[in-house]
Amino acid sequence: MSFRVHVRVMPRAGLLDPQGQAVEHALSALGFPEAGEVRVGRAIELDVQAASPTEAEARARQMCDKLLANPVTEDYLVEVEEGG
Amino acid sequence: MSFRVHVRVMPRAGLLDPQGQAVEHALSALGFPEAGEVRVGRAIELDVQAASPTEAEARARQMCDKLLANPVTEDYLVEVEEGG
Repeated sequence: MSFRVHVRVMPRAGLLDPQGQAVEHALSALGFPEAGEVRVGRAIELDVQAASPTEAEARARQMCDKLLANPVTEDYLVEVEEGG
Repeated sequence: MSFRVHVRVMPRAGLLDPQGQAVEHALSALGFPEAGEVRVGRAIELDVQAASPTEAEARARQMCDKLLANPVTEDYLVEVEEGG
């Protein structure tokens, strides 16, 4: 079976995020002063062939550990789409 | 009130995504041939001061239209965190 998997890779809490700070300043300058604590990361979507949603999630986590995320500086979240 | 808002900005369906293709090839080379249709976009998280979740989402959509997403090449999804 094929499952659509959504991965979110974000800079770890406590670490500086210069891109997030730049976006926050730009938003403020554009008339959105109500935005704060902006963090910018990567969103990755992929199909995973697997026997079950649990297996698809486990494989996606291995992909994160090996390639998609930097374990020192980033955290990741894996979600398997329902009915995928 | 302050709401935590999650934004996902992805290359529009049908448009080429060279970064996604590169990740797909790298995954295959690393022993993950079951990954396919990889798309890479941006994940943005921010706090939004607003009177209600609906208002927070509406403001975040305006931020996407003005800065966070490219309306020609990208689609975006806005989610307001429950209990945020």
